[in-house]
Amino acid sequence: MGVLHNLISIQDLTRDTIDMILDHARDMEPLAVKRSKVLDGKIMACLFFEPSTRTRLSFESAMLRLGGSVLGFAEAGVSSAGGKGETLADTIRTVERYADVIVIRHPLDGSARVAAEFATCPVVNAGSGAEEHPTQALLDLYSIRRMKGCIDGLTISLCGDLKFGRTVHSLAMALTMYDVDMILAAPKQLRMKPSIIAEMEKAGVRVRQVNHIEDALQDADVVYMTRIQKERFPDIREYNAVRGHFRLRREDLELLKKDAIILHPLPRVDELDPDIDDSPHAKYFEQVEAGVVTRMAILDLILG
Amino acid sequence: MGVLHNLISIQDLTRDTIDMILDHARDMEPLAVKRSKVLDGKIMACLFFEPSTRTRLSFESAMLRLGGSVLGFAEAGVSSAGGKGETLADTIRTVERYADVIVIRHPLDGSARVAAEFATCPVVNAGSGAEEHPTQALLDLYSIRRMKGCIDGLTISLCGDLKFGRTVHSLAMALTMYDVDMILAAPKQLRMKPSIIAEMEKAGVRVRQVNHIEDALQDADVVYMTRIQKERFPDIREYNAVRGHFRLRREDLELLKKDAIILHPLPRVDELDPDIDDSPHAKYFEQVEAGVVTRMAILDLILG
Amino acid sequence: MGVLHNLISIQDLTRDTIDMILDHARDMEPLAVKRSKVLDGKIMACLFFEPSTRTRLSFESAMLRLGGSVLGFAEAGVSSAGGKGETLADTIRTVERYADVIVIRHPLDGSARVAAEFATCPVVNAGSGAEEHPTQALLDLYSIRRMKGCIDGLTISLCGDLKFGRTVHSLAMALTMYDVDMILAAPKQLRMKPSIIAEMEKAGVRVRQVNHIEDALQDADVVYMTRIQKERFPDIREYNAVRGHFRLRREDLELLKKDAIILHPLPRVDELDPDIDDSPHAKYFEQVEAGVVTRMAILDLILG
Repeated sequence: MGVLHNLISIQDLTRDTIDMILDHARDMEPLAVKRSKVLDGKIMACLFFEPSTRTRLSFESAMLRLGGSVLGFAEAGVSSAGGKGETLADTIRTVERYADVIVIRHPLDGSARVAAEFATCPVVNAGSGAEEHPTQALLDLYSIRRMKGCIDGLTISLCGDLKFGRTVHSLAMALTMYDVDMILAAPKQLRMKPSIIAEMEKAGVRVRQVNHIEDALQDADVVYMTRIQKERFPDIREYNAVRGHFRLRREDLELLKKDAIILHPLPRVDELDPDIDDSPHAKYFEQVEAGVVTRMAILDLILG
Repeated sequence: MGVLHNLISIQDLTRDTIDMILDHARDMEPLAVKRSKVLDGKIMACLFFEPSTRTRLSFESAMLRLGGSVLGFAEAGVSSAGGKGETLADTIRTVERYADVIVIRHPLDGSARVAAEFATCPVVNAGSGAEEHPTQALLDLYSIRRMKGCIDGLTISLCGDLKFGRTVHSLAMALTMYDVDMILAAPKQLRMKPSIIAEMEKAGVRVRQVNHIEDALQDADVVYMTRIQKERFPDIREYNAVRGHFRLRREDLELLKKDAIILHPLPRVDELDPDIDDSPHAKYFEQVEAGVVTRMAILDLILG
Repeated sequence: MGVLHNLISIQDLTRDTIDMILDHARDMEPLAVKRSKVLDGKIMACLFFEPSTRTRLSFESAMLRLGGSVLGFAEAGVSSAGGKGETLADTIRTVERYADVIVIRHPLDGSARVAAEFATCPVVNAGSGAEEHPTQALLDLYSIRRMKGCIDGLTISLCGDLKFGRTVHSLAMALTMYDVDMILAAPKQLRMKPSIIAEMEKAGVRVRQVNHIEDALQDADVVYMTRIQKERFPDIREYNAVRGHFRLRREDLELLKKDAIILHPLPRVDELDPDIDDSPHAKYFEQVEAGVVTRMAILDLILG
């Protein structure tokens, strides 16, 4: 019924569709403040097989601001799927009778697509496996556009764990649809997969790889930081050797262009020093807010 | 205030009351689609001392479709009853100050009745111990009536674990109020208790017991399948010996009457082969939908 | 925007503010029954880093009765703060983008105040560490006023664990603003801290300490019981020696004034014998109800 049906992967979307979602997110800004009843009576099921406060609460806040309501679970343990060995297909074919849209977070790659195959109602991927987190990519794009005015023409640095972070995968794929320069700063153990870089280059993105975050700052319009997780390193000494190079400190900000912005999907651990939080470059909490309006736009395009 | 107050056991209901509930469920069908505000301002407390996605989300969806709202917990661990040793009576006398109706799932037999004794607000049993699950029985009856046009005159096969399944106990007791033939197909370790069979026969139900599911198919208008749980068998070899006889496969469908329907309370494990899901006999996902309207009817009769 | 912003500690409030909250709670009584839409469109985030059914459901019921809606988590495990080591400051700066008010329960002293420092939206302390539980103190005051007509002039006995109970700390501090006599009955291991007693006396409260609950009954207008937790005693024999003196039994009620009332923050274990529940003195379940209207008043003063 809506303009959108499923939202599973950034790669399913054209640039036109993405731009339409971002335009609609902008239209949602006033509704986010004064609230709305456009989705009154609609029900969103949140199936979080993997806990995530941020993404779940962001979707719930979006749905409630549009007048809809929410049901679901916040961890697999309390579901039949967890406790009783039900297949994902059966869970989906059940829950679609309870709700108008299913928002799913699942630890396995491809799970959201499987869900969409079995569902007759729309399915939104809220993070599946290590590969996809399309609504995060859309809110990242919306944040960039809101804060920088446009996306085309920018130089964007992705920093930190570019190998395992599903957020940066989805964002990198989304950015292939824009005319951007990209700097990839990662420890050598956590570099972006060559296949993704190849796709980016094929799409015309100018990609430069660097080893230290310092080299990713000077030219960037957007510095997109991510967490480097200790458990990715077989040897703790390796982790200790690289972490200092992927931490942003107050003094590093001097390397930045005057109007560069710093984003982060959050939660952070120590890769963003708290004393940069009050810098005009730091936009990661505004990015949280952009997440709500982006998800309002998605829900409204699907259900409205 | 409502037409119904508590709903604790099928055995508390007369056939007239059951028929009224089923009639009201039919009236709920259009509201399930276009939604309603008849329970606007009403609050349902879901107290799930034992996790159950399906039943909980079904009740929540029913309440939300009628314009009401929901609070509660999805597992005992996060409640005072779990963590601080509070008695059920105290939990109930507290929660009734927060809500207009209490929906309770509890691992102990008799717990829902205890809850109703202490509550001044209405209490609905969403599954207590191994014995009672009255709203499941009502939705099963409603599914049969919706799909077969009536209940009287039908031959109904209950298959699988008839000893421990609370669903089949409640359903069998409900069916004693109808003019039906019943076939009970269970491994000998999991047969229906003689006391229940005696009650069924006393009520005029014609009961036939068989050892294999194959013998339960030919005459049936309704085949009601249930899960056989491995952990019910002291010896895994016993389990392996019987499981093949209580699994429904594509080829078994040829034994069925042309218009026979297959129901299952779900979740299933392997007792329904997934390749029968697209057969016209397979009605277990429509049964999920019937669950929502049946619970809408119950909530509306209690609170409306 | 509201009349109140944060509610962190009883000690932040003047008597005038407290009286205004209690007056507003009285105004909420009819809305608690017939419900309202004054907070329609408003969102309350419940961040329970420590489980508490009672307080959480009481706040949720209050919010729903005023037409608002609720999101959040019921235990730290499902949050980034629990699982991913996020700081409380970051969690708060994120969640404030999702909600209009944050209600927080946290195991550490001072955590609610930290939350309020980082939040731009209002924060309500729903229990932090061993020290503060201001909304419980307010609902206790409201219960006393509703049931006794006034607070000034009363003799109030606090009984049980006066050392570790955050409820009695907040209540004792609140009562320093009233003209009351206070009897403190606790085992010697669990006596109220001298610093709190000194503050009470400095404020003009007449304090008397006794060792047995029997000595706290005769003069009391209000007997406020609390749980004595076994785990507070290094030696189980010590616990067994005192517990009998801090249990209220049917026969003890004869020592009470005719119109004395018994309150308890609940859950109880065995310090209130269940056979006093139907005595006219027993008001602890009405106190639960008073909790909902008090929290309605607080939410309405903050968001209305």
